[in-house]
Amino acid sequence: MTETTYRAWATPGAGEPLAETTLTAGALPADEVEVRVTHCGICHSDVHLIDDNWQVGVYPLVPGHEAVGEIVALGSGVHGLQIGQRVGVGWQRGACGHCDNCRAADEQMCSTQQATAIGMRGGFAERLRVQAPFALPLPDALSSVDAGPLLCGGITVYAPLARWARPGARVGVIGIGGLGHLAIRFAAAMGCEVTAFTSSPDKAEQARAFGARHIAPSRDPEALGELKETLDVIVSTVHAPLDWAAFISTLRANGTFVFVGVPPEPLTLPVGLLLGRQRRVAGSMIGNLRDLHAMLDFAAQHGVQAQTETFSIDDVNAAVDHVRQGKARYRAVLRF
Amino acid sequence: MTETTYRAWATPGAGEPLAETTLTAGALPADEVEVRVTHCGICHSDVHLIDDNWQVGVYPLVPGHEAVGEIVALGSGVHGLQIGQRVGVGWQRGACGHCDNCRAADEQMCSTQQATAIGMRGGFAERLRVQAPFALPLPDALSSVDAGPLLCGGITVYAPLARWARPGARVGVIGIGGLGHLAIRFAAAMGCEVTAFTSSPDKAEQARAFGARHIAPSRDPEALGELKETLDVIVSTVHAPLDWAAFISTLRANGTFVFVGVPPEPLTLPVGLLLGRQRRVAGSMIGNLRDLHAMLDFAAQHGVQAQTETFSIDDVNAAVDHVRQGKARYRAVLRF
Repeated sequence: MTETTYRAWATPGAGEPLAETTLTAGALPADEVEVRVTHCGICHSDVHLIDDNWQVGVYPLVPGHEAVGEIVALGSGVHGLQIGQRVGVGWQRGACGHCDNCRAADEQMCSTQQATAIGMRGGFAERLRVQAPFALPLPDALSSVDAGPLLCGGITVYAPLARWARPGARVGVIGIGGLGHLAIRFAAAMGCEVTAFTSSPDKAEQARAFGARHIAPSRDPEALGELKETLDVIVSTVHAPLDWAAFISTLRANGTFVFVGVPPEPLTLPVGLLLGRQRRVAGSMIGNLRDLHAMLDFAAQHGVQAQTETFSIDDVNAAVDHVRQGKARYRAVLRF
Repeated sequence: MTETTYRAWATPGAGEPLAETTLTAGALPADEVEVRVTHCGICHSDVHLIDDNWQVGVYPLVPGHEAVGEIVALGSGVHGLQIGQRVGVGWQRGACGHCDNCRAADEQMCSTQQATAIGMRGGFAERLRVQAPFALPLPDALSSVDAGPLLCGGITVYAPLARWARPGARVGVIGIGGLGHLAIRFAAAMGCEVTAFTSSPDKAEQARAFGARHIAPSRDPEALGELKETLDVIVSTVHAPLDWAAFISTLRANGTFVFVGVPPEPLTLPVGLLLGRQRRVAGSMIGNLRDLHAMLDFAAQHGVQAQTETFSIDDVNAAVDHVRQGKARYRAVLRF
């Protein structure tokens, strides 16, 4: 196989609408596979890349990093994957394999991590090439539509839950959105008792359907005060400023507060809140390959998938706008 | 055994010098043991109690919570301890046994934790009574003088190191004082590579003798910058305000910053510093009984004890002043 010509949807510059374009890829590198994309989730971080909110964009840029498809070509050095196999691709398309973090099997923190959606190689395209280990075989029980968002949104909440929450733990999830609804589903499937914190009371019923046992308002000091020392783990999926000290006070002894969303202001916290009950505040970022495989297996076992709305790739700009405006219930997925 | 009359050294009111007093204790409760105190360390928290810096003092108050002595009486319900046995007593003299934290074997966070040195039952006394589980048999290899400070200072740094540091880990210790010198000794004995952070360059040689491989200035932004992403665990033993964000940036992926000292100002931290490398910020508070026994065994195995200066109990006020002024090198111990 020498080269491939395919359609992709790229933004020519920061904040501009996506436009269909034709790309040509050269010979497939020996350590990569080529995937024919059938579905790709739209993550809020795709919108950040399109709009250049993080100032890391290189344009034109093909977004998309929750892709599902079928392997159509294998590099000459690839073993253990097959043509026709259904795989998923998430935030990461490659790693160096040699830095301290790769050696520690935390390749998501590789010092030269290759992101799927930065540059011209994202999943809003008919073809996607990634290093073979980052083409993740999908269990049959997972649908191509609803599994896509597991590959970034799902792993982002699964990894910290798997790290910090034990069965029976009382888990708080802040925010009932793309990440939050998956956090509720995963935590409930792990045997945890879930409290969903939201500033949108109209989402309460759906949060219960996702598996939340309790619903609490996220901006009510009195309600948070009543939950003092009741939770073991809290995963915050929001980017809003909240009263973090009040949330941390809801943690029991040895409890852990995990940020997977970055609030706009620095965290300010009296250190005594950490000492007296041996609490921890942590950050978590996607997951490593081991986490990803375990997450997909667990999701298949327990039927954990995203609740999705689907759009044709021809309507990609409407779909991106839908996500940009926070209207997705709860993840948008493009069909090719 | 009905009642005991003994001498104790009590402060009549906040900040006042200690005065010898005679106390009488009634019948020994069934679940307690009585210890004839031979040595008692002076912890900086004794000074805080004497001076009422924490506003928890009840006066008159007998300080002292790093006591070593010999069991002289057993309550009728006590098993497994013997008259004449040498034991140590630390910060905690009792627990309820029934609250959530006691049930989780974290009795140091018991909701009605009984502190040894709050009230009239501290270790600056010829006799000390504690619930039997809090009279900790001392391994023969530990001396009665140098082991005393292990019972509060030692466990305070041992517990977070045992929780977070693996052999081979690169461990930073902030502050080379009563806690810090024990942290260096414990971490070195655990097979860690220790960097001691200090604002007193004259302590460098001693820090190396305690086991530090590297010495770094704690208030030099450039020096901290050079250590970016090099450490796995940092234990901060100081109460001073430092550039915590700069220290947290010296942590590698999955690294943990542990406060065992409480700085005067709230911690302020950009959350991105936690996310990008999955770092954690934690607090730790003394240790539970399992930690205490393991710490004493480990200290005996490896000859980890405090470096002490001894004072006669008759000079207790001079000794307390010595600690109050930060002059102890590195722990003061009273002999009875």
